[in-house]
Amino acid sequence: MADKAERRARFEGVYRRIADELVEDLRKNNIPEDAMKWYRRSLDYNVPGGKLNRGMSVVDTVEILKRRPLTEEEYVKAAVLGWCIELLQAYFLVSDDIMDASITRRGQPCWYRNSEVGMIAINDSFMICSAIYRLLKSYFKKDACYVDLIEVFLETTWQTEIGQLIDLITAPEHVDLSKFSLEKHSMIVIWKTAFYSFYLPVACAMYMCGIPHTPIASLDPSKPAQDPYDIAKSILIPLGEYFQVQDDYLDFSGTPEQIGKIGTDIIDNKCSWCINVALLHATPQQKSVLEQHYGKKPSGGPSELEVKRVFEEIGVREKYAEYEEGVVKKLREMIAQVPEVEEPNTLRRDVFESFLGKIYKRSK
Amino acid sequence: MADKAERRARFEGVYRRIADELVEDLRKNNIPEDAMKWYRRSLDYNVPGGKLNRGMSVVDTVEILKRRPLTEEEYVKAAVLGWCIELLQAYFLVSDDIMDASITRRGQPCWYRNSEVGMIAINDSFMICSAIYRLLKSYFKKDACYVDLIEVFLETTWQTEIGQLIDLITAPEHVDLSKFSLEKHSMIVIWKTAFYSFYLPVACAMYMCGIPHTPIASLDPSKPAQDPYDIAKSILIPLGEYFQVQDDYLDFSGTPEQIGKIGTDIIDNKCSWCINVALLHATPQQKSVLEQHYGKKPSGGPSELEVKRVFEEIGVREKYAEYEEGVVKKLREMIAQVPEVEEPNTLRRDVFESFLGKIYKRSK
Repeated sequence: MADKAERRARFEGVYRRIADELVEDLRKNNIPEDAMKWYRRSLDYNVPGGKLNRGMSVVDTVEILKRRPLTEEEYVKAAVLGWCIELLQAYFLVSDDIMDASITRRGQPCWYRNSEVGMIAINDSFMICSAIYRLLKSYFKKDACYVDLIEVFLETTWQTEIGQLIDLITAPEHVDLSKFSLEKHSMIVIWKTAFYSFYLPVACAMYMCGIPHTPIASLDPSKPAQDPYDIAKSILIPLGEYFQVQDDYLDFSGTPEQIGKIGTDIIDNKCSWCINVALLHATPQQKSVLEQHYGKKPSGGPSELEVKRVFEEIGVREKYAEYEEGVVKKLREMIAQVPEVEEPNTLRRDVFESFLGKIYKRSK
Repeated sequence: MADKAERRARFEGVYRRIADELVEDLRKNNIPEDAMKWYRRSLDYNVPGGKLNRGMSVVDTVEILKRRPLTEEEYVKAAVLGWCIELLQAYFLVSDDIMDASITRRGQPCWYRNSEVGMIAINDSFMICSAIYRLLKSYFKKDACYVDLIEVFLETTWQTEIGQLIDLITAPEHVDLSKFSLEKHSMIVIWKTAFYSFYLPVACAMYMCGIPHTPIASLDPSKPAQDPYDIAKSILIPLGEYFQVQDDYLDFSGTPEQIGKIGTDIIDNKCSWCINVALLHATPQQKSVLEQHYGKKPSGGPSELEVKRVFEEIGVREKYAEYEEGVVKKLREMIAQVPEVEEPNTLRRDVFESFLGKIYKRSK
C-alpha cells in the first residue's frame, strides 16, 4: 500500500475531477457564471479540507473486500463514494456551524461567517447534499447497486439528522445537566456520528462489491444466519461509539500539541462522555460544583479549572482506560465471530480490524 | 367530482396518517419522547397550512390519466405523493424564511421565529425533506416506479436549490437593478418555482400510472416522436413561469382583499416581473426614479408610491394583459399538439387544460 501522503494525494485528485463535473452540470443547464463560481467556491471551501478518513476508508474497504489492488476504474468509483461521504459530512458541518454559532472550522472561519455568505450558507449546504445524488447517478446509474446506494445515503442522512435533533434539544445554551445521561450520550453519538462515519463507508464498499443481503451462516451453529450488512452494523456502530467517546476524552485530556486544537467541550456545555461519567460517580458536593461551573466560559477560566479538578478527583482518566479496555475486548470478540470465506467480494474480519487498528489508543 | 372543501378535507386526512407514521418511525427506533414531540410539532406547524394546490394536483392528475375515479388504495398513494410535494415545499419555505429573514408565513410567525426554535429550524427543514424518502420507501418500495419517483424528487430538489441560489445572489439586500433582467427573472422563476410546482406533480402522477419513457409519435408527421415526460415538461415549465409572472403581477396590482395579503415585492427589492418589465421600457428619468426608490421601506411609504407611479406611467398593467394573452395562446397551441389516445394511463390534454383553467385570469 502506498504511503499515507500518496494515498491522500490520489484521493484528492478525484475531488478535483468531481468538483469540475458538478460545476459542468450547471454549465450544461445554462446557469449564469456567477452562480457557477459561487457553487465552486462553496465546494472548495467546505468539502476537501478535512482529515478525509471517512472518505478514504471506502477505498480501503473495497480493496480489502476484493483481496487485490483496484483497477483505475474501480479506484475512481470507490473514491467517488468516499467523496459522497465527505460531501454528506460537509453538508452537516456547514449547517451545524450555523446552528451552534461556531466561529472556526478546520482552521478557517466557518463558511457562513464570510460576510458575503451569511445565511446563503443554508442553501449552499443543501446544494452540497444534492451533489451526492448527482454523482451517484453519473457513476452508478447502470450498476445493480444504484438503488441500494441511494437508499443507504438517504437513510444515513435521516439518522444523522435525528442525532442532531436529540443533541440540539438535550444540550441547549443554558446548562441543564439533569437532561444528561450516559444513555442519552450513547444515543446521540450513535445517531449523529456512528452511522455516517463508520457504517456508511463500509456499506458503500459492500454494495459496490456486489455483496447481497443474503444471510450467511454463523460460526456458532446454535445462532441463526445473518445478513452481512447487519453483521457489519452490529460491529461498526459500537466501534463508532467508541471512536466518539475517545474523541470526547481527548478533548478533555489531550494537550493542544497532541490533538491540534484546544478542547472546548467543558466551556461549551457539551453532552460529552466525560461529564456523563463524572455525573454518574460524583458525590453530591462534586455534582454541585459541576452544575455551577460546567458550560461557563472563558477557556482556561476558573470554572473550567474547577470542572477539570472534579474530573481528576472522580478519576475520569481511569474510567476511560477501563472503558477502552472493555469495549476493545468486546469488539475483538465480535470480530472473531464474523464468518469468512476465501472468495473475493465477501465480508471478512480485516474490514473491521483495519478500522479498530486505526482507532485503538490513538492520541490525536 | 366532490366539491373543493370535501376534496381538501379528504386530502388532509391523509396528512394525519402520514404524520402519525413518520413519528411512529422514530418510536420504533427508541428515539426519546421529547424528540418525537418536537418533530411532530415541526411537521404540523410547517407542512399542512398552505393552499395545498400542488399536492392535490397529483390526485387530480392521476384521476385524469386513469379516466376513472380512484380506488381507496390508489387515492392514498396519489395523496402520499401529493404530500411529498407539500413536504418538499415546507422544506424550502422553512429555510427560505431564515435566509430572507422573513417575519410571518401563512398567517403565523415563521417557524424559526419561535423563541425555542431559532436555528434548530435548519435541522427541522432537513428532517422535513428526509420524510419524503421515508414515505416513498414505505408506500412505493415494491412498485416499478420507485426509483423514478426517488430520482424525480432528488432532481427537482437540486433544480429548486439552483433557482434559490441564483435568486439569492441576484437580489441581495442592497439594491442593484443592473443585475436584473427579464431573462434572469425567467431563469429564477423556472428553476425556483416551475419545476417543483408544475412539472413535479404531473411527473409523479405519470410515474404512478406506469407511463413509460417510450417516445410517442407527434401529431405533425414531420416532427420526431417525443418522450411523454419531455412533452409534459415543455408545457408545464412555461405554464409555471406564467403562474409566477401572474403572482408577481398580483403582488403589485391586487388589493389586499383580493390576494389576502399586502404585496411587498417593491419594498423588499424583489427581482419581480413588474420591475423587470418597467426597466425594459423606462426612459432614463423613469429609470433613475426606480433606482432611487426600489427596495425602500416602509410599506405604503413615499418610495413605494413613487415606484408604483412609474409602473402605472409605463403601463405595467397593459404589458401584463398583453403578456397573458400571448402566453395563454401559445400554451393552448402547445396543448393542442399533445398526441392522445383512448387508453387509460396515457398522457392526455386534459392534464394541462386542467392546470391552465385553474390559473387563467385568477385574481388570488
